[in-house]
Amino acid sequence: MKLTPDQVAAFERDGYLFFPALFSPREVQVLLDAVPALYERREAINVREKGSDAVRTNFAAHLYSAPFARLARHPRMVEPVQQLLGEALYMHQFKINGKMAFEGDVWQWHQDYGTWRNDDLMPGPRAMNVAIFLDEVDAFNGPLMFIPGSHRRGVIDARHDTTTTSYPLWTIDHALIAQLVERAGGRAGGMVSPLGPAGSMILFHSCLVHASGSNLSPWNRVSVYLSLCAVGNHIRRHQRPEYIAHRDFTPIECLRDDCLLAAPPVELPWRDGVPASAFVTSCEPLKETT
Amino acid sequence: MKLTPDQVAAFERDGYLFFPALFSPREVQVLLDAVPALYERREAINVREKGSDAVRTNFAAHLYSAPFARLARHPRMVEPVQQLLGEALYMHQFKINGKMAFEGDVWQWHQDYGTWRNDDLMPGPRAMNVAIFLDEVDAFNGPLMFIPGSHRRGVIDARHDTTTTSYPLWTIDHALIAQLVERAGGRAGGMVSPLGPAGSMILFHSCLVHASGSNLSPWNRVSVYLSLCAVGNHIRRHQRPEYIAHRDFTPIECLRDDCLLAAPPVELPWRDGVPASAFVTSCEPLKETT
Repeated sequence: MKLTPDQVAAFERDGYLFFPALFSPREVQVLLDAVPALYERREAINVREKGSDAVRTNFAAHLYSAPFARLARHPRMVEPVQQLLGEALYMHQFKINGKMAFEGDVWQWHQDYGTWRNDDLMPGPRAMNVAIFLDEVDAFNGPLMFIPGSHRRGVIDARHDTTTTSYPLWTIDHALIAQLVERAGGRAGGMVSPLGPAGSMILFHSCLVHASGSNLSPWNRVSVYLSLCAVGNHIRRHQRPEYIAHRDFTPIECLRDDCLLAAPPVELPWRDGVPASAFVTSCEPLKETT
Repeated sequence: MKLTPDQVAAFERDGYLFFPALFSPREVQVLLDAVPALYERREAINVREKGSDAVRTNFAAHLYSAPFARLARHPRMVEPVQQLLGEALYMHQFKINGKMAFEGDVWQWHQDYGTWRNDDLMPGPRAMNVAIFLDEVDAFNGPLMFIPGSHRRGVIDARHDTTTTSYPLWTIDHALIAQLVERAGGRAGGMVSPLGPAGSMILFHSCLVHASGSNLSPWNRVSVYLSLCAVGNHIRRHQRPEYIAHRDFTPIECLRDDCLLAAPPVELPWRDGVPASAFVTSCEPLKETT
């Protein structure tokens, strides 16, 4: 899968690209079928919604679930990111966000790179967010909202919000959001929500400002959020547990395009549980190795 | 303003009617200009959002604000309701809901009549909700969501939710919501959100099941919600303060169609403040007068 020059230009201008129905219904089903068992686990890898049992986000499934391990090496996902960043990639973060029917809470306005820089000492924004819809996304089940072009603003000052939801987040001041939306076209395109069937994929810049509303609908909005980082841009601190911010900077090697259905064997290093070492954290920067 | 037979049939089938841009931008501006002074008042008539200073709902402005007193008697609003209910009407409730930019919280799934019956002993659902947009409503600023036809289910059992938001509400079980949406067409029309410019009006049945999401956008979504009740169907208990559930069952007499701009004098019985009597409540049913 090779992006056209127009797609590359659109990404640079808008900060995102949308690929409706990139994965087939059968491929999606393989992934979706694996989710309930992951969400059942009463472990730190599952963050639940405030005051509810619904899973808000599950971490690192690519290390203990075969279908998600394959998705993490899927060429339809990895190759365009590699093309845009022009470097070998490692997996920085892997989440399955629930945004469950009736229960899914908001994600406030933020840039992902803000968190990665502040918490993980990731040197630059040479990293990409990928969202893959496991459910149809419509106007009612809490779609992602982007401010097109906001990635060109670079890193924006943020405030650590630890109270609004169950997940601490570096969030952006409302006055600045209003200004960015206005500059992006106000009510004529200043905010956009890519909507589409299950299997759709969004690539978005790690500085693109985004948010999502609550899900009051009867439809889950489960999405996989993968964050791929250029190997040379790997994080420099292990302040967060390894299941949140990965520490294995080995370049991703793609599987074949049919891997979700052909189901070749994959390594699952955390098959028997999250290792104790993954919980060891430190505020000290890593020693640079040369 | 006379509804056509098609409009009456659509109301009976779907439980709502939508009139985009029914009021002109100039008429809307007169109303919108009056809102900030109302929202500033630190009184019981303003319910603020949980953990925020933003006004969630303001009560009874038609009793102390001239522009809203005129809106409460506007023929474009009152006459179609009178036609649908076939009776003289009084004002049961009058709210200006903020759903302010960035701050506006959700309204859970509910029927308004559920609250009126449970709290106010309103005998039957011979009452109508009217929503008038003072701001443009789009997919981003927390539009109303309806389940078309759900009013035909009649009164649904509800649970008194006093914790989710700052406003206590009789809310409906999620399994039943899922069922109602499915029966109304599922993803093909089982939920609808009328979107349109400021000045648009929605009439909706007091048993129509509805909700609305949070507003994370930089755009306020101020709407006036008027609840008109057939005089013969007046409430039978004053368990809630008078500024929430009115006790004056005098039939509404319409002003002229140009009243918002011509600004004829109107009575403002609460001009000097909410009277002490409005706070006197009782769990006892009213004595029937014959």
